[in-house]
Amino acid sequence: MLILNQKEIWSVLSFEEALTAMEEAFQLFEAGDFHMPDRMHAHHGDNTLLLMPCFTDQFFGTKLVSVNPENPKKNLPSIYGSMILNDGKSGEALSLMNGAALTAFRTGAVGGIGIKYTTPENADSAGIIGTGVQGFTQALFACRVRPIKKLYVFDMQQSKANEFISKLQKKLLDVNIKACINNRELVEKSQIIITATTSKQAVIPDDAELLKGKHFIGIGSYKPDMHEFPAQLYPLLNKLYVDTPFAKEETGDVATALKETLIDDSQVTPISKLVTLGKPTNESTSLFKSVGMALLDVVMAQKMYTRALELNIGTKIKI
Amino acid sequence: MLILNQKEIWSVLSFEEALTAMEEAFQLFEAGDFHMPDRMHAHHGDNTLLLMPCFTDQFFGTKLVSVNPENPKKNLPSIYGSMILNDGKSGEALSLMNGAALTAFRTGAVGGIGIKYTTPENADSAGIIGTGVQGFTQALFACRVRPIKKLYVFDMQQSKANEFISKLQKKLLDVNIKACINNRELVEKSQIIITATTSKQAVIPDDAELLKGKHFIGIGSYKPDMHEFPAQLYPLLNKLYVDTPFAKEETGDVATALKETLIDDSQVTPISKLVTLGKPTNESTSLFKSVGMALLDVVMAQKMYTRALELNIGTKIKI
Repeated sequence: MLILNQKEIWSVLSFEEALTAMEEAFQLFEAGDFHMPDRMHAHHGDNTLLLMPCFTDQFFGTKLVSVNPENPKKNLPSIYGSMILNDGKSGEALSLMNGAALTAFRTGAVGGIGIKYTTPENADSAGIIGTGVQGFTQALFACRVRPIKKLYVFDMQQSKANEFISKLQKKLLDVNIKACINNRELVEKSQIIITATTSKQAVIPDDAELLKGKHFIGIGSYKPDMHEFPAQLYPLLNKLYVDTPFAKEETGDVATALKETLIDDSQVTPISKLVTLGKPTNESTSLFKSVGMALLDVVMAQKMYTRALELNIGTKIKI
Repeated sequence: MLILNQKEIWSVLSFEEALTAMEEAFQLFEAGDFHMPDRMHAHHGDNTLLLMPCFTDQFFGTKLVSVNPENPKKNLPSIYGSMILNDGKSGEALSLMNGAALTAFRTGAVGGIGIKYTTPENADSAGIIGTGVQGFTQALFACRVRPIKKLYVFDMQQSKANEFISKLQKKLLDVNIKACINNRELVEKSQIIITATTSKQAVIPDDAELLKGKHFIGIGSYKPDMHEFPAQLYPLLNKLYVDTPFAKEETGDVATALKETLIDDSQVTPISKLVTLGKPTNESTSLFKSVGMALLDVVMAQKMYTRALELNIGTKIKI
């Protein structure tokens, strides 16, 4: 069995390989070549354990994620995860991976796919709202898929934004990275705007004139009571792209917009449609909203496993 | 994170520690100090993936078991398993264990508990029907809880029985182990009879006179269409002891007997009642039927984890 830890998860695939893996996952999704049972939620007190299995042709995998909201008070991450990857034919367990790192890395890649298929090819400015792990990863992938020269950052806590920028600058030497004084300034200056917060209210000004012509990538809100986008964005959209149709139930950014008829159900479109056609949209204003699904995890995990064996990365143990 | 492989799983706890662990699990069961969500079945073609989480006070664990019926044709085990044990407070993954070995070992211990609480203390003869891994483990635990001097073995395949005996004799030097020509001879000669087959029909003669005064431990049948015990056994029973009330649905040995009113629902009794009282029953004819449950796995896993840390057993990895 091959163990891939946090560091190995981040190093085994190149950004390009990760993006290709997610394109393959979306192609599988469109073709229906997978089996993804409903995920299982187990609650115990305030804590939640999510079990997310998915079967592809050659493999199956189960991501186990625990969410313990009290952890940050003890200086621990609120989310821990493990990924078990199995041989699809025999069922033998092939790999154990750090599930939190896998999730972060593949979510970065999915954001990258959103940018690749819904934003102008020559976009050279982007803004990041939210300076956690996910904001960081999104920035790295954004700069791989678009020739970003200017990157804007906003966080309610100025000190967090500054720390984020100094860390990010080391990874993106050719990019001019600047903090904004508020979200309005960030949206004004950026062609692509990526949100990666856990906000329960819009983190973008509710101003159609400001939003027109902009390209939004929503990463943060993953619950029906969370949302990051304002009401005036939706009437500007032709389609609302999602990574999975489950987004209609799972995130307030889609569920609430549907409920308030800001957008019609028929406009909600899986990004897999664009990926399969191999043709980015050229809509003037766009939104791609990601919530994640087990298929994306298992496809990324199987790519990592295969590549790790080739590169001799990870720890082999006899189980 | 601590990895415990097959060999380590079999060596980390003594038989006595394993039996104590299962007594503690049954005490938790009786007290209700646990949370065991319904297990999740995911089917993909002929293969099944079972996800079995359970929360106790200090830990939670998830056993992932895959059942691939075509494996034996390729000389592979049909069942593979992984156990992930987590810290109950933070959710951090603490250990990965070989789930097949964990299941086999704890099922042996559960059978041992059945013998301890439902058979005469001085029983010195036992019979094993079925010579797989589970028959082997049951024999070892049986000889720990009762002063067994004579052990009888029956398998439809004589050669398998002989191989089993020669392997078992090395572990049980003081026990006289013999093969029987049929199941009738085995039941005649044994006070305790352990069945560990995957049969879909009774593996014991349907003869009340033969069965009277005998003590049966049912390990094999774990599906509604499987059973090991004959109709004439049930009217001889005062109670039918089970490791979990789910046995009423999960095994033909209980489900079919209830359906055919061979036994009344009120007679089906969790063994945890006896364990909590600390008082073995002294019924003249008895049946204990085990089907297993996630609580037993997680309690065994947490004992193994704690003891492995003390004894410095296993492989520590950074995940």
